Amino acid sequence: MTSTPPPSNLDPAVAARLKRSADGLVPAIAQQYDTGEVLMLGWMDDEALHRTLTTGRCTYWSRSRQEYWVKGDTSGHFQHVKSVALDCDADTLLVKVDQVGAACHTGDRTCFDAGELTVSTAGA
Amino acid sequence: MTSTPPPSNLDPAVAARLKRSADGLVPAIAQQYDTGEVLMLGWMDDEALHRTLTTGRCTYWSRSRQEYWVKGDTSGHFQHVKSVALDCDADTLLVKVDQVGAACHTGDRTCFDAGELTVSTAGA
Repeated sequence: MTSTPPPSNLDPAVAARLKRSADGLVPAIAQQYDTGEVLMLGWMDDEALHRTLTTGRCTYWSRSRQEYWVKGDTSGHFQHVKSVALDCDADTLLVKVDQVGAACHTGDRTCFDAGELTVSTAGA
Repeated sequence: MTSTPPPSNLDPAVAARLKRSADGLVPAIAQQYDTGEVLMLGWMDDEALHRTLTTGRCTYWSRSRQEYWVKGDTSGHFQHVKSVALDCDADTLLVKVDQVGAACHTGDRTCFDAGELTVSTAGA
């Protein structure tokens, strides 16, 4: 974990609390605010969190493209931000959103719809 | 990302799909299966996932203690596993559980209860 915040417009009081991964990111869980569906997990750096808190649209850092990514900018499937909470360890974000259309790039409502694994417990 | 699975008892077909962080871990979101509450985020390596899938109790890898951690073993606040899903990128797990008592070590029901950040959007 690194505790050195990168340059950003994030409120310094929030930046001081964040515990980032070695690459300066924090996982952000996106949840549909009314149904409770867990939609996806993305990653935010300080600036992405700042934009999420101040623009009303969920903004991630794309690790594959190495750029900011306003969810919906290309697909129209925006995530309108309802609330953001930091967890007890200050290393994970929970973002409650109103998801337009599908959250998943496959067209599924959530990124977890197609990935069920087999749970096999003998009398547990 | 590393794609080399560590030695574990995990089903090789599942292990072959997993995309792990540089330290061999995958974030696992724990969600209360009936209410939809997002309880916490933990980390699993292949063996922790195997144990989660086969023992009925959610098992994480503790990054701070560097050991397996059956949630509830010390607190009694077990997470009984209902279902496990891998996301579309195979780099995040969603574990639906029946949480006994508080999920958070602070005594809060979820790890996000006390960490609300201020969302300030001007007409967004």
